[in-house]
Amino acid sequence: MKSDANPSAALLLIGSEILSGRTQDMNLQTIAKALGSIGVRLCECRVVTDKAAVIVPALNTLRQQYTYVFTTGGIGPTHDDITAQCVADAFGVPLLQHPQAVERLLQYFAQRGVEANEARMRMANVPQGGTLIDNPVSVAPGFRIENVFVMAGVPKIMQAMLSNILPTLTSGAAVHSVTVVCNLAEGDLSAPLAQCQKRFQQLELGSYPGKHPTAGSRVSLVGRGTDANALNQLQQALQVMVNDLGGEVLEVQQAQVD
Amino acid sequence: MKSDANPSAALLLIGSEILSGRTQDMNLQTIAKALGSIGVRLCECRVVTDKAAVIVPALNTLRQQYTYVFTTGGIGPTHDDITAQCVADAFGVPLLQHPQAVERLLQYFAQRGVEANEARMRMANVPQGGTLIDNPVSVAPGFRIENVFVMAGVPKIMQAMLSNILPTLTSGAAVHSVTVVCNLAEGDLSAPLAQCQKRFQQLELGSYPGKHPTAGSRVSLVGRGTDANALNQLQQALQVMVNDLGGEVLEVQQAQVD
Repeated sequence: MKSDANPSAALLLIGSEILSGRTQDMNLQTIAKALGSIGVRLCECRVVTDKAAVIVPALNTLRQQYTYVFTTGGIGPTHDDITAQCVADAFGVPLLQHPQAVERLLQYFAQRGVEANEARMRMANVPQGGTLIDNPVSVAPGFRIENVFVMAGVPKIMQAMLSNILPTLTSGAAVHSVTVVCNLAEGDLSAPLAQCQKRFQQLELGSYPGKHPTAGSRVSLVGRGTDANALNQLQQALQVMVNDLGGEVLEVQQAQVD
Repeated sequence: MKSDANPSAALLLIGSEILSGRTQDMNLQTIAKALGSIGVRLCECRVVTDKAAVIVPALNTLRQQYTYVFTTGGIGPTHDDITAQCVADAFGVPLLQHPQAVERLLQYFAQRGVEANEARMRMANVPQGGTLIDNPVSVAPGFRIENVFVMAGVPKIMQAMLSNILPTLTSGAAVHSVTVVCNLAEGDLSAPLAQCQKRFQQLELGSYPGKHPTAGSRVSLVGRGTDANALNQLQQALQVMVNDLGGEVLEVQQAQVD
């Protein structure tokens, strides 16, 4: 795996069913965590309908702005699966049957005794210059073209494709996080927290109100960044801050990414 | 409620915690369904980090493109809550203390015996020209400016604000859906399904593979649109299609939106 100072990524979720409310997206969080674990920052996500007029420009904007773009959805055999054609259009290249994809699909369909009809064979179409992303679940591959990775929308298949993609990416410094959960109110934490953020400018410090399983209202103070030493110092500073304000630290966590 | 032929909407989810994978977003689906129920189509969603340099241009793009823009997140009292300032910057107006918001917050803080400090009073800041969106859960209001509605990110508070917003929107024809679940494979359904889509051009027809609780692999065929008569005809056509292909209809649903 190559490494880069600061690789970035965007995610394009393609699917009218997400924007109609029919389907609760579960892919963003999975992809965010996986990318974070190899130091690729997910900077933006867009959810768009199954329409070329929105997919193509969104893709062209994102692929120029970020190191990597990942898409999910729209690579099945039905009429509403238009992602491959849209990616070809975005790159201005023809959509071609990929010989290796054809071979894999024909073998898979033969084994299962299903007809290799025109609709199913559309799943072998890849924009010219694209390389295949293996699909160990249901064979029909995703593909990569330049910095764009096209994956299935079904979470199980997406996850399998993502596992195959991750080792091929240029990684950055892994993002770590520290979380200090306390029983104070955000309104009381705000000023000293802003001081902390000023002191640790290389880290990103967030504050998230919520409920603790046993302790009622709580606030999670979360620092994220690549400087493990600074994160340790931040954790101590946050604990001291909570104590100085008369509060109680309920929980401390360190994680590779969160 | 006024009505319009085809009101559209975009959603801007503001929060680094979603893009880091820490938080699973639950607001998109709620908002999508609520808007669909009054005939406002959610056409696009973007998730962005807590950075003015990305929030401001995203907001300016979306508010020019859609009838309505809804934002969630970033309106609390801490340093990472920058949404109100970003909206003011996007509209090129100053951020001012809203007298009514000040009054509500002072009363609420007095009742609860918490200090009305500078951080907490920041939650009374609204871009010039903005009007308040009531928050029956925790008082600190959201606001509307022109076609942009700024809501909290905490789902319970967001839902309360959304309930107050919905009756003020210009509605469109309600979007209905029919779902026909069958035991056929997408690859066999593709060609007749494309014919169906051609026949019912006023509807949007999607195909979603999944698992049935008792019947194993299944495909959900979903038609969406505002023409209830056409949806009924589509439902019958889909059932006939499944039977003609030698398949079984496992389930039929009609819903106001899905």
